Amino acid sequence: MNALNTLGKNLRLTSYGESHGEVIGAVLDGFPAGFELDKDFIQTQLSRRKPGQSSLSTPRKEDDEVIINSGVFEGKTTGAPIHFQIKNNNAKPKDYSHLKDVYRPSHADYSYEARYGTRDYRGGGRSSARVTSGWVAGGALVQDYLLKKKAIQFGAYIKQIGLIKLKSEPKFYSQGEVDAEIVRCPNKEIASQMIAAIEQAKAEKDSLGGIIECVITGVPAGIGNPVFDKLSAALGHAMLSVNAVKGFELGGGFEMSGKRGSEVNDEFELVDGKPQTKSNNSGGIQGGISNGMDIVFRVAFKPTATIGVAQDTVNTSGKEVKLEATGRHDPCVVPRAVPIVEAMAALVVGDFFV
Amino acid sequence: MNALNTLGKNLRLTSYGESHGEVIGAVLDGFPAGFELDKDFIQTQLSRRKPGQSSLSTPRKEDDEVIINSGVFEGKTTGAPIHFQIKNNNAKPKDYSHLKDVYRPSHADYSYEARYGTRDYRGGGRSSARVTSGWVAGGALVQDYLLKKKAIQFGAYIKQIGLIKLKSEPKFYSQGEVDAEIVRCPNKEIASQMIAAIEQAKAEKDSLGGIIECVITGVPAGIGNPVFDKLSAALGHAMLSVNAVKGFELGGGFEMSGKRGSEVNDEFELVDGKPQTKSNNSGGIQGGISNGMDIVFRVAFKPTATIGVAQDTVNTSGKEVKLEATGRHDPCVVPRAVPIVEAMAALVVGDFFV
Amino acid sequence: MNALNTLGKNLRLTSYGESHGEVIGAVLDGFPAGFELDKDFIQTQLSRRKPGQSSLSTPRKEDDEVIINSGVFEGKTTGAPIHFQIKNNNAKPKDYSHLKDVYRPSHADYSYEARYGTRDYRGGGRSSARVTSGWVAGGALVQDYLLKKKAIQFGAYIKQIGLIKLKSEPKFYSQGEVDAEIVRCPNKEIASQMIAAIEQAKAEKDSLGGIIECVITGVPAGIGNPVFDKLSAALGHAMLSVNAVKGFELGGGFEMSGKRGSEVNDEFELVDGKPQTKSNNSGGIQGGISNGMDIVFRVAFKPTATIGVAQDTVNTSGKEVKLEATGRHDPCVVPRAVPIVEAMAALVVGDFFV
Amino acid sequence: MNALNTLGKNLRLTSYGESHGEVIGAVLDGFPAGFELDKDFIQTQLSRRKPGQSSLSTPRKEDDEVIINSGVFEGKTTGAPIHFQIKNNNAKPKDYSHLKDVYRPSHADYSYEARYGTRDYRGGGRSSARVTSGWVAGGALVQDYLLKKKAIQFGAYIKQIGLIKLKSEPKFYSQGEVDAEIVRCPNKEIASQMIAAIEQAKAEKDSLGGIIECVITGVPAGIGNPVFDKLSAALGHAMLSVNAVKGFELGGGFEMSGKRGSEVNDEFELVDGKPQTKSNNSGGIQGGISNGMDIVFRVAFKPTATIGVAQDTVNTSGKEVKLEATGRHDPCVVPRAVPIVEAMAALVVGDFFV
Repeated sequence: MNALNTLGKNLRLTSYGESHGEVIGAVLDGFPAGFELDKDFIQTQLSRRKPGQSSLSTPRKEDDEVIINSGVFEGKTTGAPIHFQIKNNNAKPKDYSHLKDVYRPSHADYSYEARYGTRDYRGGGRSSARVTSGWVAGGALVQDYLLKKKAIQFGAYIKQIGLIKLKSEPKFYSQGEVDAEIVRCPNKEIASQMIAAIEQAKAEKDSLGGIIECVITGVPAGIGNPVFDKLSAALGHAMLSVNAVKGFELGGGFEMSGKRGSEVNDEFELVDGKPQTKSNNSGGIQGGISNGMDIVFRVAFKPTATIGVAQDTVNTSGKEVKLEATGRHDPCVVPRAVPIVEAMAALVVGDFFV
Repeated sequence: MNALNTLGKNLRLTSYGESHGEVIGAVLDGFPAGFELDKDFIQTQLSRRKPGQSSLSTPRKEDDEVIINSGVFEGKTTGAPIHFQIKNNNAKPKDYSHLKDVYRPSHADYSYEARYGTRDYRGGGRSSARVTSGWVAGGALVQDYLLKKKAIQFGAYIKQIGLIKLKSEPKFYSQGEVDAEIVRCPNKEIASQMIAAIEQAKAEKDSLGGIIECVITGVPAGIGNPVFDKLSAALGHAMLSVNAVKGFELGGGFEMSGKRGSEVNDEFELVDGKPQTKSNNSGGIQGGISNGMDIVFRVAFKPTATIGVAQDTVNTSGKEVKLEATGRHDPCVVPRAVPIVEAMAALVVGDFFV
Repeated sequence: MNALNTLGKNLRLTSYGESHGEVIGAVLDGFPAGFELDKDFIQTQLSRRKPGQSSLSTPRKEDDEVIINSGVFEGKTTGAPIHFQIKNNNAKPKDYSHLKDVYRPSHADYSYEARYGTRDYRGGGRSSARVTSGWVAGGALVQDYLLKKKAIQFGAYIKQIGLIKLKSEPKFYSQGEVDAEIVRCPNKEIASQMIAAIEQAKAEKDSLGGIIECVITGVPAGIGNPVFDKLSAALGHAMLSVNAVKGFELGGGFEMSGKRGSEVNDEFELVDGKPQTKSNNSGGIQGGISNGMDIVFRVAFKPTATIGVAQDTVNTSGKEVKLEATGRHDPCVVPRAVPIVEAMAALVVGDFFV
Repeated sequence: MNALNTLGKNLRLTSYGESHGEVIGAVLDGFPAGFELDKDFIQTQLSRRKPGQSSLSTPRKEDDEVIINSGVFEGKTTGAPIHFQIKNNNAKPKDYSHLKDVYRPSHADYSYEARYGTRDYRGGGRSSARVTSGWVAGGALVQDYLLKKKAIQFGAYIKQIGLIKLKSEPKFYSQGEVDAEIVRCPNKEIASQMIAAIEQAKAEKDSLGGIIECVITGVPAGIGNPVFDKLSAALGHAMLSVNAVKGFELGGGFEMSGKRGSEVNDEFELVDGKPQTKSNNSGGIQGGISNGMDIVFRVAFKPTATIGVAQDTVNTSGKEVKLEATGRHDPCVVPRAVPIVEAMAALVVGDFFV
């Protein structure tokens, strides 16, 4: 039932704010009453997303401290909408004045201007990934709720950066395991290679893309509403709403298109008297409804559009120009997107539990 | 704004019906008044989807003749909801009684039963791809409208069947070009290999998956509503609603995750004084909004779950059993899904034009 | 979450059809699985709404037999959308050709033409109350569900016809009590006066309006979602969707605007240890949420717009003309609207219980 | 498409905040880009709503200065969601501690507790009319837009306070005419009587209800989406969302239920070659669609529930108690509700123009 800047049907997140405006915010509506607010967990997820957290990310410094000023009374949620607000402290709008009149390649400058006839050029304005801080705040509360009330956990991690791939089978990793390396790949050796690849791209004023894998454990069988509110479609919608995402696949995904039914069908067996599948090429969803196995999906991020390398482009006066972007940006946004993927997944799953 | 069995926000398709019920239907709401109904085009798209159309598809025979009995007056739409109905003539529910008590691997039997506590086992019931006939009927009307009123065209074709791939760049192909081969791949040689692969799988009572690529031409720049009603997310949602779909990617997609910004950024140039991109790795969408280039996406279908090869599974009495599916089914559904992909894409794009 | 031709958020009714088209229909989505279909009850409600049922209604004869052909398997609902269809057997479109070019006063002819640029003039087309037969079918199923599963009952009856008023306090009357008189007022004497008033209006080729009161018993405290999905607002929305309705009030309603707080506040007392209110001027809803008392509301219907008395009007060629409507119509629609009010109320209340 | 705390389909207002929390806020989504923000007009409407504005209202003092910190760039809207925030400066939560354990008659205390299992008792929390300040902020922007871009004007005024009625025909009055008297009735003599009635009720620690009439001029024919998104139903939904509202009627309303068709049908005539109606008992809406005449509706407010007179009630420990409310409240909220009615009407009408 996603519409404009609201995601979700019964649990609904409404997002507002711009990269270099005063604030980023979100209103979470439909959240159950009586849940004890754990602001620390929300702040942790925001810190995993925030800029300047490691040598791999943009030098923009933001505390990203969240203010929660409605929907909570005496430390517990009341059932009223919950408002999250994050200040933009380190906004430097002037850094972006050189972009006022130019369309950055593979950025949203041109399409926003075509859509709205105007554009807030300061750091991408509304099209910036900075607005996802509000999503992470709201989603983190839902993650916490689903963990404590439903024993559902969200574990996202880096599967691929550039051409460096984590080849092991999908598996739930704890936050500690994922965050052991700044690149958020739960394999020390692969992680080192990924870090090196990002640093090299950065040194060359270039950028890299990557893939995040997410494993959700504890979702019981029977979640999802076919035919147009399938759990898979809702997850896909949420992930394709994240900045720089260009692909989404579930379980065996694209690779499964090259296989035969007999190779990839998930045969059932009884485990402790309950039907389970021997393999999980379905990614935990069959016919749009969860089947009780881990939910497994991958999200493809393109390389950061903003690069220092000179590029051809066009300006608003209709002239062809060269652009060498300055301003602050990430050589690879994917490690910072791990908590975003978790938050969005939690919002989607949570919608079926309120 | 998709909800339960309704897709879309301003142009809304509500779907009903089951595989072996009496009818399949759909109500299309929000369609503009005064448009002359071209029932032939709708029937053509239904015929491209219908079973029994070639040696590659299930032997189930259905005319799939559409009845349109509301929302049209004196040959033109009135602005009232349009009701499409297709009879299930060749339903043979008894063919399926052997499946009443067993969960077919990688099918929706188990998850539906977990969700609803009951299940219409006749040919998959509501989870069957047969229900997409209603989607195709409604979507085809929208396709026709967008072509005649907005010069927007939808061209889907087979990109991959099993491991046989069409390697050429994405491009709009006419229906004639696509349908020249029964497998709907617009390259005679590749098509022959695909057909051979399907026939071999069929001979071995097995099934194959594949990938459909869709190119939409004529969408002007400026279509899409960030942040949660992005054109890309809406397309992804619609495609992930289609039966057997396990992945969706836009433009450069997953492959782009392995690249650098300098390799895949779409530089702008002026063509006839208008900004265009030299490459189209963005797939025509930037920041969730169309940029005026062709919209390009791919949809990954897993192999048909129903196969004749013996498989392990579990029955409703909690026993492990062997299953060799009989009943009628397609060794590869992907060629028949071409008009479904077009219809769903038309419903999504049309939503922004009513 | 009502949109276009769909009412409801989680339990959603999508309506289609025109007065003199082939069919009227509705799709009910979100209805729980496993409920045994009682087609007789649905048919009863349809018969209470159908034309030609008594001397007070239009002579148009319709059986209004409902076909239910999806969402039900082996006599029980499956959780899939349920499709209701009613044939228009006695459509006489030719009766209406004299209205093709003229705007009937206080009818929807002119506004529909302004909205859609076209109009199905046959008996009002989409704007006819005939389309409510689909609403009654869907709503009746929900009524039956709420009675059997939640002990919630809907009792609507005539409160006023023209200037004849039933002055007793709101109270739940059984269907038998309400239907004892053809005018559906549960007081024999007042009913006779109402019937006489309608017959006199009919004799004078004129029409009468009236008021329906509805009492819902058994709704527990705590139903409703402030601030924009209040139970009261949802009921108002549904009632104001019914043809010819011009007003809605809850509990003490408009009269309460002339009173003081000390006169109309509903004081609490304990009854069997549970808080109840001594009076029920709130109509069972406080702050948009039910308080456990009977829900009481009234719906104001204007007199039937179509009358035989000569009226001034304008035609589509921009000429002023005289109109003396022929065709079949009710001198007073209100008695037939009783099951419509119940159906709509059931759809609204049911939305909070699925 | 109203859902939970969001009103509207294409133009959507999401509300948050509580009476004695830190802030009240709203996010307005879907508002067109490029509109110059007139903060003064918004502030004017907020001042018309704010407490302490005259001797008739609660002594609570709030500046109600609005902060707008997203969706606006260089003084103009950008198409991004617009965030409005109003601080609660004069919150005195302690004033309300005596209400913590008691259910105020005809207030939302008991029903909120039944709904959420908890309750923010400080001044009504989320159920307080204070949250409408966010609605007025968002609605005022839409009012300004509709005036400047579509020449549509909203004129609400007091029709009745207690038993004192303004008996003249509905008519558009300017804000100056309405605000000439603090009670907002555009008739000096009637206004004096109304003021006297309120002051008398206040002196007796009691409260009064009233009726607001609203006239919308300039809405062209053809606005509204039957059958479930009728302009009339959308207006009714919005008005019944306002605190203390117990009734809504359009044009001739309830009174028309006592009339004959020949008395109240709106005959068409040609005025400057365009069809108009001679009377306007339809209130500008026929079949749910505007007909180009003034839109006229009335909203019934019950008397303020909070009164100083002693009342019987029940506390949360299940004891019957006496309550004499202290704390700050209005003897009659209706004059302050004038800008709320205008704002809500603007949000509804605006939804059809974006």
